[in-house]
Amino acid sequence: MRAVQYLEIGQPPRVVDVDVPEPGPGQILLRVTAAGVCHSDLTVMGWDAADFPYQLPLTLGHEGAGVVEAVGEDVHAVSAGDSVIVYGPWGCGTCHACALGRENYCPRAAGLGIVPPGLGRPGALAEYLLVDSERHVVPIGDLDPVKTVPLTDAGLTPYHAIKRSLAKLRPGSVAVVIGAGGLGHVGIQLLRAMSAATVVALDIREESRELALRSGAHHALPSDAGAVDTVRDLTGGAGAQAVFDFVGAQATLDLAAQMAGMDSDIDVVGIGGGTLPVTFDSPPYATRVSTSYWGTRPELIELVELARQGVLDVHVERYGLEEGPQVYEHMEAGKIQGRAVVVPQG
Amino acid sequence: MRAVQYLEIGQPPRVVDVDVPEPGPGQILLRVTAAGVCHSDLTVMGWDAADFPYQLPLTLGHEGAGVVEAVGEDVHAVSAGDSVIVYGPWGCGTCHACALGRENYCPRAAGLGIVPPGLGRPGALAEYLLVDSERHVVPIGDLDPVKTVPLTDAGLTPYHAIKRSLAKLRPGSVAVVIGAGGLGHVGIQLLRAMSAATVVALDIREESRELALRSGAHHALPSDAGAVDTVRDLTGGAGAQAVFDFVGAQATLDLAAQMAGMDSDIDVVGIGGGTLPVTFDSPPYATRVSTSYWGTRPELIELVELARQGVLDVHVERYGLEEGPQVYEHMEAGKIQGRAVVVPQG
Amino acid sequence: MRAVQYLEIGQPPRVVDVDVPEPGPGQILLRVTAAGVCHSDLTVMGWDAADFPYQLPLTLGHEGAGVVEAVGEDVHAVSAGDSVIVYGPWGCGTCHACALGRENYCPRAAGLGIVPPGLGRPGALAEYLLVDSERHVVPIGDLDPVKTVPLTDAGLTPYHAIKRSLAKLRPGSVAVVIGAGGLGHVGIQLLRAMSAATVVALDIREESRELALRSGAHHALPSDAGAVDTVRDLTGGAGAQAVFDFVGAQATLDLAAQMAGMDSDIDVVGIGGGTLPVTFDSPPYATRVSTSYWGTRPELIELVELARQGVLDVHVERYGLEEGPQVYEHMEAGKIQGRAVVVPQG
Amino acid sequence: MRAVQYLEIGQPPRVVDVDVPEPGPGQILLRVTAAGVCHSDLTVMGWDAADFPYQLPLTLGHEGAGVVEAVGEDVHAVSAGDSVIVYGPWGCGTCHACALGRENYCPRAAGLGIVPPGLGRPGALAEYLLVDSERHVVPIGDLDPVKTVPLTDAGLTPYHAIKRSLAKLRPGSVAVVIGAGGLGHVGIQLLRAMSAATVVALDIREESRELALRSGAHHALPSDAGAVDTVRDLTGGAGAQAVFDFVGAQATLDLAAQMAGMDSDIDVVGIGGGTLPVTFDSPPYATRVSTSYWGTRPELIELVELARQGVLDVHVERYGLEEGPQVYEHMEAGKIQGRAVVVPQG
Repeated sequence: MRAVQYLEIGQPPRVVDVDVPEPGPGQILLRVTAAGVCHSDLTVMGWDAADFPYQLPLTLGHEGAGVVEAVGEDVHAVSAGDSVIVYGPWGCGTCHACALGRENYCPRAAGLGIVPPGLGRPGALAEYLLVDSERHVVPIGDLDPVKTVPLTDAGLTPYHAIKRSLAKLRPGSVAVVIGAGGLGHVGIQLLRAMSAATVVALDIREESRELALRSGAHHALPSDAGAVDTVRDLTGGAGAQAVFDFVGAQATLDLAAQMAGMDSDIDVVGIGGGTLPVTFDSPPYATRVSTSYWGTRPELIELVELARQGVLDVHVERYGLEEGPQVYEHMEAGKIQGRAVVVPQG
Repeated sequence: MRAVQYLEIGQPPRVVDVDVPEPGPGQILLRVTAAGVCHSDLTVMGWDAADFPYQLPLTLGHEGAGVVEAVGEDVHAVSAGDSVIVYGPWGCGTCHACALGRENYCPRAAGLGIVPPGLGRPGALAEYLLVDSERHVVPIGDLDPVKTVPLTDAGLTPYHAIKRSLAKLRPGSVAVVIGAGGLGHVGIQLLRAMSAATVVALDIREESRELALRSGAHHALPSDAGAVDTVRDLTGGAGAQAVFDFVGAQATLDLAAQMAGMDSDIDVVGIGGGTLPVTFDSPPYATRVSTSYWGTRPELIELVELARQGVLDVHVERYGLEEGPQVYEHMEAGKIQGRAVVVPQG
Repeated sequence: MRAVQYLEIGQPPRVVDVDVPEPGPGQILLRVTAAGVCHSDLTVMGWDAADFPYQLPLTLGHEGAGVVEAVGEDVHAVSAGDSVIVYGPWGCGTCHACALGRENYCPRAAGLGIVPPGLGRPGALAEYLLVDSERHVVPIGDLDPVKTVPLTDAGLTPYHAIKRSLAKLRPGSVAVVIGAGGLGHVGIQLLRAMSAATVVALDIREESRELALRSGAHHALPSDAGAVDTVRDLTGGAGAQAVFDFVGAQATLDLAAQMAGMDSDIDVVGIGGGTLPVTFDSPPYATRVSTSYWGTRPELIELVELARQGVLDVHVERYGLEEGPQVYEHMEAGKIQGRAVVVPQG
Repeated sequence: MRAVQYLEIGQPPRVVDVDVPEPGPGQILLRVTAAGVCHSDLTVMGWDAADFPYQLPLTLGHEGAGVVEAVGEDVHAVSAGDSVIVYGPWGCGTCHACALGRENYCPRAAGLGIVPPGLGRPGALAEYLLVDSERHVVPIGDLDPVKTVPLTDAGLTPYHAIKRSLAKLRPGSVAVVIGAGGLGHVGIQLLRAMSAATVVALDIREESRELALRSGAHHALPSDAGAVDTVRDLTGGAGAQAVFDFVGAQATLDLAAQMAGMDSDIDVVGIGGGTLPVTFDSPPYATRVSTSYWGTRPELIELVELARQGVLDVHVERYGLEEGPQVYEHMEAGKIQGRAVVVPQG
């Protein structure tokens, strides 16, 4: 089969021929119907050989959707022909975190060598994808795989961050979304669907601010000091109840610290390389600063149910499998709006 | 192998010879080291043929501990020789409730014919026990299986009920435990370990009130109208913040409704056949009345960790496998204090 | 001043002349701008002399809005000219419940003789209203008092019930609203604004089902056995995650018990006189049945902020003060849609 | 009356004569029975004139207990002769945060010039203390004021921090307390009373580690790299679920970041001047870093109820009012164990 692989440190990925895998006990073979392409792969492909944690070649793609082609023994929940999406942050399955479905925070995964598809294991940018367990697929029925596959990361990651802060997002609260790109514009839709918070989106790009407004943001502003004033005004001086930074650069984290109110949440989602220093004086008292990594199994199930209600509209750009390497080039050039999705049979 | 089976409606169980099962893909064969005997089996064996939901013969015992004897393909988390206890309320494993580890509330289990060991599937009162998935065993290391096996139900059931109400059990609150028997005396220990609530135990039997005090109850009283006054006095008239009824008879539910305060919890755990009528006038405003069924997977993991700290002391009476039928007789006669545990090799 | 008073047990209320009160220390005198008329007054006026808990004559009206006319010493938060609405379920102000703003569940209020305006103290159906503390008014700025006054009960009561169950109302969940009248149609709007749940409204009246759909319900059905089937279908057989019964009659509580799923919430808000019996077999395992009474101080502040966002549209019918007695007649005859509001200066 | 006042920037405090205040409307005059002396006053007295935010002279002491001497109009909850302790972090009383009793996070207090006694308003290190509202005193009945007064800060501050993280402190979890001094040793007792977590105390002073063990810590270790290894060992490598840093110096914050696990809490309570930098790589994913400031009104009520159960044993050293300045000298020299309490009549 054809697969988009990262073959050599520092070189662009290529489309190559590899064997179709066979499902062993507990495993599921999917014929890929859609694979989302994520900006974080550029970060991964930017690492030096010394820091690179995975084996090469690596089939890319950690957002996968497919139709079940074959299943191994001990698979009961799905069968051939079922349309599914793949839960990516695999854990051990039996520890306390995994028993709660929080496999994204499994403390044993690293030690056991368990890694996500596309981030260590062969990923979804291929004609077929092997999934290790039935608990890592979620049936999507007749939902369009191309529109649905971004839920596995571009949807799940903001969803998880928002759920962690949902108790703070009472009516009358203000939620700030920094970065209205692939994840951010879904985050805005999720905030509107799940809360009565006033949503303020910040982005340096005008077209992203427009996407933010179309996605339901009440306000869309450039990411600068003026935004801090606006947020303070909207909250009677108190500051925002939650700030979701989907960029995570130094400039955006600085804004986050300035516009968050006391007893609020700052969720650092983007891998932009910034640092947010917590001292007794800043950010305001009791504001919780934390990163947020991907999402949980029950949350992906909830997202699929939300998609079924028709309230999400993920902005996707569709490509063929042979165009995979080119997608990364476009992404690096900032030419992709929303989410790029590769359709092997497309 | 020898097994305690319920063979015929209305007849006492007998010890018979049955085949040792073999583990298929995903399954685990345990050599049973301990099996708890639960009062609820008497309820099950009291049902008419018309109401009896399981196939006969039925190997009894839904509290199981064992050493892994053999594993099928696709089992990775345990291997031969591991000492484990068994999580009983099996669910489908992939729905939203199961993804959260809340298999005890799996809405699909009944439709799929998934039932617990000892309550439909062959149970733990035998020399060997077959478990359907690695996610249904929790390693216990060098903990004593005889003292630990009651955690799977006599521990897990009160633990789950208490966790559901833990937010109400702030310092200064009063928690009432009705029925200080097999589950209740563990519930008292759990309340003391996990909260700063004042614990009031009610039981009609003097020896159970003594067990309650030894288990850490601050007060132990007969289950009557006087107890209502005491609880009102302890709370400045306001009433208890949580009442856990491990009996569930009409008399105890009536007491629960009278001693609960506004905005409190009444957790009906015991299968005593009573009814608690909720109207706008009673119980007090906003008091939440609910049953509570067994417990979740992560909760059983937590309980094992609690046992490892040495804070639990489950009162057990030890029997051999051939004595199994006799245990039920003793239980029916009210002669068992704490929990009866069958030790096949004992 | 003119006031609508209940003067004699069993007789309709009348408009009479009474003295304008004067504010003592800590008190606030409001010139009433709007007073909501609530169906529960009919229940109160239906009580026998033996059961009647308040002194007569009683100025009616527990939903009040006004402009501050004068304040006593020790009032700092508002001053003459401020437009406010009144928080009704007054508590002692210093106990644990009141410190959390949960004055509606103050365990000391009854013993101290503290009662709400219109339900013991002189109410809002008058030209002037005396409020006992600055903590019991919420400024509304330039919001229309006539549209805003129903928030104090017709809004606050469903808001409180919904907040208690909000954790269950995850995306993919189903919330059932029984009774789409004065409180129910606001409840539907609140559910849509605050959650991503699918909202199913039940009402026996066709015009109320239409109001439900206009208020945002996804489905509006007659309150009968067919509705149970629909809810089961919408949830894959599992049942609703929350049922809010704004009627509370026997027929509606029976439906609630049948359509609630395991581990769900049944909130009994309506004073319809029904009984919901909780046994180990029904409602489903772990479903929490409770009444819900009025709401908390912080919740009323949140509601005003929500109103400021323009997402609520309370259906009101406007009357003059002299028409007060007539409003109760219309209400008894079922002729009022939404909420009746009396405007003394109107 | 005599009062310990800070009179001049950079000079030690002195005992001087000042007028006894008179209670206006809503106010309460206390005859001081005990006043705790807090290490944070040294920080305040270390500020330059340019940064000093309060007026001089300033009567010190933000931990106060007293007997009601007189009350102004509009005070109903207490009367002359009542023994009370004082809630210190006063807020506006009517905003959303204050309605929840979270006056310590009132966003309006600063703008309204509302400051705590001893930190702007005249404090408790005097013969009499004026309190602005009945909601800021909590009756303590016959509890010893000297042992109880430290609850108002040395108790309330760790209590608040622990409550914020209580959901993480499930059985099997590990809680780390850094700094077993005045606040830390109470924090250890609170953790043991309110949770089943394993408590690990770190302190560089041997006598404080001994106090930690007497206070109930399971382990007491020097604050160094070895402690990181111990915590990793105790948690199977995963790291602690919560770290409470009562020191807040750079060295202790560095340890906190190293020993916290994924999805844990780091609560910075001490004003030690350190910085904890949050990046995507450190601390572990989803760990929440935040400061924690003093506590809420309902929490102080809970603490008094906990004290009534006799489970707290605050280590106090008793001094006379004239010794006030000397207490600060001892404190600066590190000679105070536990909490210093001044007793004006002692």
